[in-house]
Amino acid sequence: MREESSEYQITKQLGDERQRVTDCVASEEPLQITVDGTPVAVVMRTPGHDEDLVKGFLLTEGLVNSLDEVLRVDLEIKQNHALVFLADDVVLDHQSLSRNLYSASSCGICGKASIEAIQQNAPPIESGFMMPVKTVMGLPDTLRAEQEVFANTGGLHAAALFSEDGKLLVLREDVGRHNAVDKVIGWAAKEKIDRADTLLQVSGRVSFEVVQKALVARIPVVSAISAPSSLAVDFARESGQTLIGFLRPPKFNIYSGDERITD
Amino acid sequence: MREESSEYQITKQLGDERQRVTDCVASEEPLQITVDGTPVAVVMRTPGHDEDLVKGFLLTEGLVNSLDEVLRVDLEIKQNHALVFLADDVVLDHQSLSRNLYSASSCGICGKASIEAIQQNAPPIESGFMMPVKTVMGLPDTLRAEQEVFANTGGLHAAALFSEDGKLLVLREDVGRHNAVDKVIGWAAKEKIDRADTLLQVSGRVSFEVVQKALVARIPVVSAISAPSSLAVDFARESGQTLIGFLRPPKFNIYSGDERITD
Repeated sequence: MREESSEYQITKQLGDERQRVTDCVASEEPLQITVDGTPVAVVMRTPGHDEDLVKGFLLTEGLVNSLDEVLRVDLEIKQNHALVFLADDVVLDHQSLSRNLYSASSCGICGKASIEAIQQNAPPIESGFMMPVKTVMGLPDTLRAEQEVFANTGGLHAAALFSEDGKLLVLREDVGRHNAVDKVIGWAAKEKIDRADTLLQVSGRVSFEVVQKALVARIPVVSAISAPSSLAVDFARESGQTLIGFLRPPKFNIYSGDERITD
Repeated sequence: MREESSEYQITKQLGDERQRVTDCVASEEPLQITVDGTPVAVVMRTPGHDEDLVKGFLLTEGLVNSLDEVLRVDLEIKQNHALVFLADDVVLDHQSLSRNLYSASSCGICGKASIEAIQQNAPPIESGFMMPVKTVMGLPDTLRAEQEVFANTGGLHAAALFSEDGKLLVLREDVGRHNAVDKVIGWAAKEKIDRADTLLQVSGRVSFEVVQKALVARIPVVSAISAPSSLAVDFARESGQTLIGFLRPPKFNIYSGDERITD
């Protein structure tokens, strides 16, 4: 069985101290689901219980009415691919598939039909952005002070852009993590902000898609109050982005690009 | 401007006491994005800053390279629709759209191209499922005790099925909220568990999609440690499901179907 978490060498900042330590990160990998030869989805998931995932997905997305319609789910032929074979008398309704599922996605991944499609990266980032540790430590307080709707409902994700000197440029809240990021980036594009000089702060966890959206927007630093996924770390490292996680002063972790965070 | 949160009459359980109170819930509504007449996505979002959302989405999903390519985003013509008009010399690449975006989704919404498609509901649930308050109060402890990977990484969502007497049937963890739910439902289908006798517990917030997946799987009760969205509440009420939120003993909220939770 594949591992549900992965070990990484990371930089841990504790007050003024900086250490290199080994840390566990939740695994995130794509799984391409193909039904009788037709690719229907790429799901970003934590490996493990993949057959249950595929069967549950087929059921809850209405692609089958019961598991009697599924002859076999083959996970061994190709890594990160689930090949679904329907029973002889069951036919995937391509018409309904194209009507209901022909679409982009709010998360930047699940609308893609193949793993190759999600790996089309923008070029790596080379930005001279620098931020002192002390400025980073101040970001969560600023974020919380501005999170208005969250205070009422407890139900929103927040995303914010900060300048190099720790000034809040914009904050947006949304039930969808990626929407909050898109709202912030849409605002910055409209206002013609130079995004190479900004840091994207998010309220919760940081998945691959958020780091990818930041890369496309040419934002060099992504910082999260909570945990990153393994693919978020891998992606940030490959794309020259700085990735901060568990930003809970007086501590935070730097998973990638620690040279941009200065004493 | 549309409201970012909505007020609901809900049932608040505090120890043995039960009250009807007014509570604020974060708004969640679909926004259909149509580019030059082609529907490209339905995004479930919190209303507000919709133009920024649409522009950010177009940029970060690679549908445009810069906002110079966007002539106008019209939000006034039809509620919950964003009509995007590209500049005269810019053409939406239908080929790349169909190659990259022809797909289902891991979240049950964002793969759908029209609002009508997401409103196709399964019939409402009529289940005699009942659970005493005391049993509900015990669910979070059981969940936490079993959340293995989370303890190491802090990075996973959990979903679990409980029987009417509060016994844990299955727990799954995943970087994706909906994947954890699909893994649990896939397992229950495989094991031929009668899902009308089960409660779905999730570790974080509960959005519309999670309640919808539960409905398709015929699960009568959804319970979350954190907040529901407005659409999750609306959907649960229309579909005869019980929806519990902010399950933090000795308190929890019942947003829908409180007759299934007994003294």
